[in-house]
Amino acid sequence: MDNIITSKDNPTVKLYQKLSSSKKERLQYGLFVLEGLRIVTDALREDSGITQLILTEKAMERFGDELLQADLRNTRTIVISNELGNRIASTDSPQGVFAVCRIPVQRRVKDILREGSKYLVLFGLQDPGNVGMMIRTADALGIDGVIMSGSCDLYSPKVIRSTMGSVFRMRIAAENDADTLFSELEAAGAVTSAAVIDKDAQPVTECSFGGTQAVFIGNEGNGLPDNVAQRCTRRIIIPMHGNINSLNAAMAAGILMWELSK
Amino acid sequence: MDNIITSKDNPTVKLYQKLSSSKKERLQYGLFVLEGLRIVTDALREDSGITQLILTEKAMERFGDELLQADLRNTRTIVISNELGNRIASTDSPQGVFAVCRIPVQRRVKDILREGSKYLVLFGLQDPGNVGMMIRTADALGIDGVIMSGSCDLYSPKVIRSTMGSVFRMRIAAENDADTLFSELEAAGAVTSAAVIDKDAQPVTECSFGGTQAVFIGNEGNGLPDNVAQRCTRRIIIPMHGNINSLNAAMAAGILMWELSK
Repeated sequence: MDNIITSKDNPTVKLYQKLSSSKKERLQYGLFVLEGLRIVTDALREDSGITQLILTEKAMERFGDELLQADLRNTRTIVISNELGNRIASTDSPQGVFAVCRIPVQRRVKDILREGSKYLVLFGLQDPGNVGMMIRTADALGIDGVIMSGSCDLYSPKVIRSTMGSVFRMRIAAENDADTLFSELEAAGAVTSAAVIDKDAQPVTECSFGGTQAVFIGNEGNGLPDNVAQRCTRRIIIPMHGNINSLNAAMAAGILMWELSK
Repeated sequence: MDNIITSKDNPTVKLYQKLSSSKKERLQYGLFVLEGLRIVTDALREDSGITQLILTEKAMERFGDELLQADLRNTRTIVISNELGNRIASTDSPQGVFAVCRIPVQRRVKDILREGSKYLVLFGLQDPGNVGMMIRTADALGIDGVIMSGSCDLYSPKVIRSTMGSVFRMRIAAENDADTLFSELEAAGAVTSAAVIDKDAQPVTECSFGGTQAVFIGNEGNGLPDNVAQRCTRRIIIPMHGNINSLNAAMAAGILMWELSK
């Protein structure tokens, strides 16, 4: 094979590393990175704006036939040495499959709201693994959309990896201004439910979830701010045994989405 | 304060590091390690066999009053330098609170089974974070016990940390021999349910969970072995939208436990 890139100063390799480590660089270029065969395959299948496909020599041998079947008219493919692959990988057993991908135009809340649909609002979530797992679970359980508000960067490699490709299938909107968020939800006639840990809240087992619904999940450590919880139509709780606070935020969101989607 | 330990060759510090990194050492000494204020406090509260409490100078100042209120008759306390604390810590922002703890006598399945109770069987689970999260969720949702079968080491630091203290509250048994596991469950009259991804299985929404119940969860990548799933009373599935395999094992276990405990 010709032109195997071995230099860490190669511009594409340098760009990949910058995008991988810095939110600022991601915003500046409007690009983010993918790592791993499955997620890159998902992105190619969903036509998700891959601009560069980066394969190690070994990955080219193993996965080249499969990957190069996709429509790559708008994608440049380069092959790098296995050593360079190990250098830019962020996982322990890298497969040598990487991509640079365009960040899609950010959707607004009102663009994704549909009557009778169910939404999850991530309000102030900070753990990338949690956020990714919630998006993945929303996809699995048939939730209609996820709204990010004041949460961590959707395009960080750890969030993207944790979504297991669901980021390319879910409708995701962002709105960091709470006033705008509530007014758009209210305009759409959505019932808003604040997930809280408070024994006076309504047990989720007694809630009905007909019509347009938005369930708010708060920060891992602190939950939802009081003023946000109070602004919601109702406050709901997952009845728990033993120690308070014992469900992880992603798990709590998963159980609420399960009830919402049933 | 006298006797602040600064040497990495101190025997307690060396023991802590060996136990932290090696399952073999944990088995040999019958000891495991804890890190962090919350889990050490939980262990002290539950009287969980802490033999050594290790605090950095800074942690002694900040948390000493709180921690030393516990019954420490069988616990030796040492103070180490902040530098040494950073050296033995496995988290990014260490609190400087560490402990060495006795591994409890391993319970057998028949020792924890009670009529009418609900159990989760972790069969071949390998991801420590998943295993810890499942134990934590079992505790939160009031599941009566967890049975480990061919899964990763319960006493690895990552499992322990992910349980958030639930490891000290849950009834946990271990049985690696599938024949013994099934015969003890059958002798107790338990209904066994295999969680599978197969559209011919019974949707969990149509299952009744009366009587003694044991739900089997399989390996993250491969699920339950066919012969194990077939040996169960029934095969159950969480109805999913979109891509198959899209729920993480811990999330699937959480939703099944939620249905089991309702």
